[in-house]
Formats: sequence, structure tokens, C-alpha cells
Amino acid sequence: MRSLIDLRTRIEAGRLTPRQAVVEAQAAIAERDGAIGAIVCSDPDPVVSVEGPLAGIAVGIKDIIDTAHLPTQMGSSFYAGWRPRADAAIVSRLKALGAVPLAKTATTAFAGLDPAPTVNPHDPAHTPGGSSSGTAAAVAAGMLPLALGTQTGGSVIRPAAFCGVAAIKPSFRLLPMVGVKTFSWALDTLGLFGASIPDIARALALIADRPEIDSSGEASRKPRIGLCLQGFAGEADADAAAALSRAARAAGAAGAIVTDLTLPEPFARAWQLHPLIQDFEARQALAWEYAMHRETLPPVLGAQLDRAQALTAAEYDDARRHAHRARRQLKDVFSEFDAILTYSTVGRAPRGLASTGDPRFNRLWTLMGVPCVNLPVPGEGLPLGVQVIARFGGDGQALAVAGMIEASLGRA
Amino acid sequence: MRSLIDLRTRIEAGRLTPRQAVVEAQAAIAERDGAIGAIVCSDPDPVVSVEGPLAGIAVGIKDIIDTAHLPTQMGSSFYAGWRPRADAAIVSRLKALGAVPLAKTATTAFAGLDPAPTVNPHDPAHTPGGSSSGTAAAVAAGMLPLALGTQTGGSVIRPAAFCGVAAIKPSFRLLPMVGVKTFSWALDTLGLFGASIPDIARALALIADRPEIDSSGEASRKPRIGLCLQGFAGEADADAAAALSRAARAAGAAGAIVTDLTLPEPFARAWQLHPLIQDFEARQALAWEYAMHRETLPPVLGAQLDRAQALTAAEYDDARRHAHRARRQLKDVFSEFDAILTYSTVGRAPRGLASTGDPRFNRLWTLMGVPCVNLPVPGEGLPLGVQVIARFGGDGQALAVAGMIEASLGRA
Repeated sequence: MRSLIDLRTRIEAGRLTPRQAVVEAQAAIAERDGAIGAIVCSDPDPVVSVEGPLAGIAVGIKDIIDTAHLPTQMGSSFYAGWRPRADAAIVSRLKALGAVPLAKTATTAFAGLDPAPTVNPHDPAHTPGGSSSGTAAAVAAGMLPLALGTQTGGSVIRPAAFCGVAAIKPSFRLLPMVGVKTFSWALDTLGLFGASIPDIARALALIADRPEIDSSGEASRKPRIGLCLQGFAGEADADAAAALSRAARAAGAAGAIVTDLTLPEPFARAWQLHPLIQDFEARQALAWEYAMHRETLPPVLGAQLDRAQALTAAEYDDARRHAHRARRQLKDVFSEFDAILTYSTVGRAPRGLASTGDPRFNRLWTLMGVPCVNLPVPGEGLPLGVQVIARFGGDGQALAVAGMIEASLGRA
Repeated sequence: MRSLIDLRTRIEAGRLTPRQAVVEAQAAIAERDGAIGAIVCSDPDPVVSVEGPLAGIAVGIKDIIDTAHLPTQMGSSFYAGWRPRADAAIVSRLKALGAVPLAKTATTAFAGLDPAPTVNPHDPAHTPGGSSSGTAAAVAAGMLPLALGTQTGGSVIRPAAFCGVAAIKPSFRLLPMVGVKTFSWALDTLGLFGASIPDIARALALIADRPEIDSSGEASRKPRIGLCLQGFAGEADADAAAALSRAARAAGAAGAIVTDLTLPEPFARAWQLHPLIQDFEARQALAWEYAMHRETLPPVLGAQLDRAQALTAAEYDDARRHAHRARRQLKDVFSEFDAILTYSTVGRAPRGLASTGDPRFNRLWTLMGVPCVNLPVPGEGLPLGVQVIARFGGDGQALAVAGMIEASLGRA
């Protein structure tokens, strides 16, 4: 993989120019993407800034995020060739930092559950996960050092885990959603994908303009970590359980105090209510697409929106109130723990391309709006990851704990 | 003015067809808008549904709200002729109810403070207010029975008061913002303008799919009303003070228990922090416009975004935390009061078209996310209005209390 920090170190030392770094990314795309299908389109003649803390960093932009200089096609035939007037706020921010929004990365249609035409770089017979399929695959295949995805259920953490890359779904609305196609406004969250935890910590601190996020070296020496199996969401595979145990042991070896955490009932209920909130909002957010193009929507999304027509405002209002209470209760949990360690996914990327996998271990945390990090756990075979979660606004804390475990796993 | 309920009554009784109702609106626009400048463009050959509870209702759509069938120009030269791909969610909802999104209404550039080319229908030498200038003027001039605006500071309540029309800025996110140009995502709120309180109550209940909102007849017989002068925001004109007193007496005459309410200090601080939250988000939301078209932004908005570049994430985070605490504290206020009665504006629409007026009595309530209704107070000269506010989610309550006062003022 291409490390953002490594590239920036070489650029700052004068051993690499920003343009050379971008040309390398273009060459990697040209060489590798034919077999992977991560890239929808890319800028053949990008403007490369020589200034800014992300100069020379080529970025992949999930194709539900507006770009004025490249089409934004939503993974959907009826947005083929669509050119927004303006860049999304996050794209403007990347440019202001000197980064190059080089390529649009493949998304499932409207960031739903119907697969994108992307394969897992580790084995093309397996899904890369979704909905940020191209984003995760492009980083995993070493095409791009940084890429943007979004998560409404588990669309950042799941593809990152399946493809073996570091990723963060930050606190809700830490990154601006202006110019990002909406699926569910209470849930949709921009996320960052990179080669390692320090890489995404650097990127998030710069993009969010909050230097304190990038303080991996200054983590509490003995963070209190709650090991949470999310029993309400079902069981994980043996492989995922083994990876979680390894990560917990690595955390302990690094000085963390790891204890079991069983979440009380309101969180199980909140987990159950996530799809109701999501689908009631998706029905409104995609109302034009549903009214005008129902017949060309892909099958899973079409059926999901069909079912969503029956949801009532009263059900939605009750679900939102419950989620609001659960968010407050989660603050109490985080008074006892600095971070939660849990599954990123049920297991490794499933075989086949008909499904993008199951977001069951991600949904609750998206609804709670708290920062979630996928930390790859090194090992044989297809990748596995674990999830590190902190309180709302504790993005730096989640990254610091994940970085501590990453370093400890590297030493093991 | 054209009453939505009156039109629907005649349509349901078979005395008017939906098409005739829409043709009447087209004729009113053709006759009156030349002198007012409320309409940016309109559909010459609209599809008129004969089904749905809003069939025959021609609606004005503020021109920062996406429409696939009409340009969406943001009040800005660099969006001239811009055609979005999809309708905003609220436009799809109107169509699903049978309404006709007939015309785009003039907005200040990006819903900022630079005036739109619209005059006050009651006196063309006076501002109609902003930023929903054309929306308020089109309803006031009897062109349209219903129109959409948005409020970030006071852009629904202020123009409604200046133009003498009923309007509601509902609870935050009761109406979907998908496809509405963002100024500040924590504040931007869609609102409805109509001829009377019952008209907007009917419209909001249908659009939000929450029938309980339209229960004007079932208001508490003795609502507890807090009369609030918002001293932290400065003083109102004598005319506005007299209108507020009249409204308070009318409420008392109708059976309400009206007592003085002085808000504690945290609300003054929240009021002060509103512009910081707004401008920090506007800097991100309009980053593309600022980076690419700074020289053609209108002067007030350009200068506002210039200043916003200096705001820090730490200031913003602190302000958001304070606003969050104030919202919780406001729940306690609403345990003692069913509604708050306060100023809509500092006074009548100022003379001249160089300013859209002052939102100082609206800002706090936008930040709190609570429903606000403008109730016109009948009298001589340019219009005056008062503001009725209820707890978050109490949109029906705010409308019921406003309707009670409206009826009592009519009897006086």
C-alpha cells in the first residue's frame, strides 16, 4: 500500500515531487485497476499543487460525492455522465490542503446494498465489501494513499476490513456532508481510508482542521478498553473471534486494561431500530429516483424502497427518540471506558460478488454517531479487522488506541 | 391572498378543477409579478394532478431548492440556467400529494443577506425581507396559496412578518433538506408560507405526514403562554411592541394564561453564538463558490465568508456544545409553558431595498431547532407579525396557539 506519511516525508525531504507522487498513483491505477474495477474515472491531467500539507497526495473520491471536474454517477445508469456544478465541501477542503482529487471510486448504486463492479484485491473471487467498494479496493491495491468513503450502516468499516486497510468513520458531522448524495441524513457519515492508522490520523487531523486528532504518540499509557461482543447482533465467525482475541491480547501487552463489556438492553433496541430510521429517510432522500426510475433501480435497493413506503412517521419519531436516549446512555459507558474493542465484520470477505457482506456489527455505532476505526489484524488468507470505538468527539482517542494496538500487533 | 383551504374546499365540492386553480395562479403571476419581482421562472405547461390532497395547489419553490423541471439558480450569476438532475425531497413530496411546483421564487444569493430583486407587495419602496423574499412576496400578493422558504437566521419569519403572511419554520429536520443548497447544516430549515394559520397547518400536516399537526381546533383551552421580550437581542420598535401587546391581550381574551418569561443567561450566550456556528459551516458549505468565484459573490456574503476564514474549529466545537446544553435547558422552560409569544421582527419592513432587515429576534430559535410561527397582526400600514414558538416537535402546538390568537384578533 502507499503510505500518506511516507509520501509526505519524501516530498518534504525533496526526494519526491508532488507531481511525481501523483504520476506514480496514475501508473498504479493504469497497471492494476483493470483486474480490480475500483476506479470509475480519473483526471488525465490533474492540477498538482506544490503547496499545502497534502501536496502530492492523490485521493480517491467515492462516486456519490460531487466533483465539478469529474462526473459523479452514483453507481447508477440514470446518473451516467452527470456533472455537478460544484465540488462537495470535502473535495474543496482536500484541494485547499494541496491534495489532488484524482479519481472517482466505484460505489454501489446510491451507496445501497447492490454490489458495485469491483473485486477484492486479495482474491478476485471475493467481494471487497460495500458500499465504499472502490475506495477500499483502490487503497488496498496500492493505487491511492487516501480515499473517501461513506457509511450509513457499515459501508466504511466493512469494506476496509474485507480489503485489509485502515479506515475511520469519524464522529457524526465532523466532516461536512454538503455535496454528498444522501441516503439517510441522520446516519450518512464521510470516512477516510489509508494504509495505516497513523496515515488516517494525519489525514483526518488536517482535513478536520483539528491537530489534536493526530496524537497517536500521546495515547493514555493504560487505556481502559471494553471488549464488546455485540451479542444482540448475533455471533461472529471463529476467524473473526480469533482476530478479536489477538487484538485484545496485543492491547493488554501494550499496557491497556481490557475488560468485558456487555451493553444494556437499550442498545440492542437501538441496533434493531437503525434500519427503520435509515429506510424512512431513504424513502424521502431517493424519492425522485423512486418516482421517476423505479424500474431501473437495482433489485435490493428497489425492494428496500418498496418496503419503506409502509413505514410511518410515528414509528420513525419513536425510533429517533429511542436513539437519542441511547446516545446519552452511551456517554455513561464512555465514562468507564476510553475505547470499545469489537468486531469490524462477521468474518472475512465472503466468496462471490453477489453480496457486499453484512453490516450487523457496524449499525449501532453509526446510529450512535461515535468514531469507529477499522484496524487490520495481520495474518494468513483474506484480511480480517477489528473495530476500535470511542465517545462522540473522541476521534483522536479512537485512533490513538487503534494505533497502540497496531504497533503492538506489529511487535508480536 | 389565495387560501389553500378555500381552494381545496371548492375543488372537493366540484366547484373548481385543479387545472382551473393552477391557471388562476398563473394569471395572478402574469398580472402582478411585473411590479413585484417575486418569481424567477415558472413552468409554462405544468403537469396538474387531479388526485391527492393538494391537487390544484400551485406552490412557489425558493430558488435554492432543486427542481429537475425548472432551473435552480441560487440567486447567483454563476448558477444561471443551472438544472439539477433530481428534484429536492420536498419537491417530490409535494408532487406525491398532487401539488404543482409551479414557480421558483426569488432568493437572496445562496440565502445570504444581499437583497434579491423583489419588492414588498404592500409598498414597493420597502424590502420584503429575506432571504425567502420572493416566497413571502408571492404569497402576500395572492399569486400562490403555498410557497417554500428556508431559514438559517430569520429567513422565514422575517419576510413573512414584513409581507403580512402566515408562515412556519418547523422543528429542525421535520421537513427533509435533501436537495436544498446548504448554508449551515446545523441551522438551515425548510418553512411554509400561506394565507392563514389553518392553511399552513393543513399544508404542514400533509407534507410531514403527521395529521396531528393540523389540530387547530383541539388546542388546550387554557394554554400557558410565556411572553418573552428577548432583551438579550436588544429592543423592538414601538410598533412591534404594540403588536405584541395586542397579540398577548387577544391570547388572554381567548383563555390563555399569559405570563412574563425572562430567559436565563445561557440563552443570551446561545444567541450570541449563532453567527459563529452559521459562518463556520457556511465557509465549508460554500467553499467551492468562495474558491472559484470570490470576485462575483455579492458584497455582504463575500465579506461574511472572508471573516469566516478566521474562525477556528475549537470555537465552533465550544459553540455547538453550548447550543446543545441550551437546547436541553429549553425543555425545562417548555415544562412550564405551552408556547412562547415574542417578536417576529424589530418592526415593520424598513424603507429601502439595500437591506433585507434584521434577524435578531429569530436567531436563537433557529439554533434551538424549535418550531416558530409568524402570525400577522392586522392593522394600518405595513404589516407586523408576532412569533409563536413551541417545544421541539410541538409544531402542532405552536400552530394551535397561533391559530387561537389569530381567531381572537379577528374577533377583536
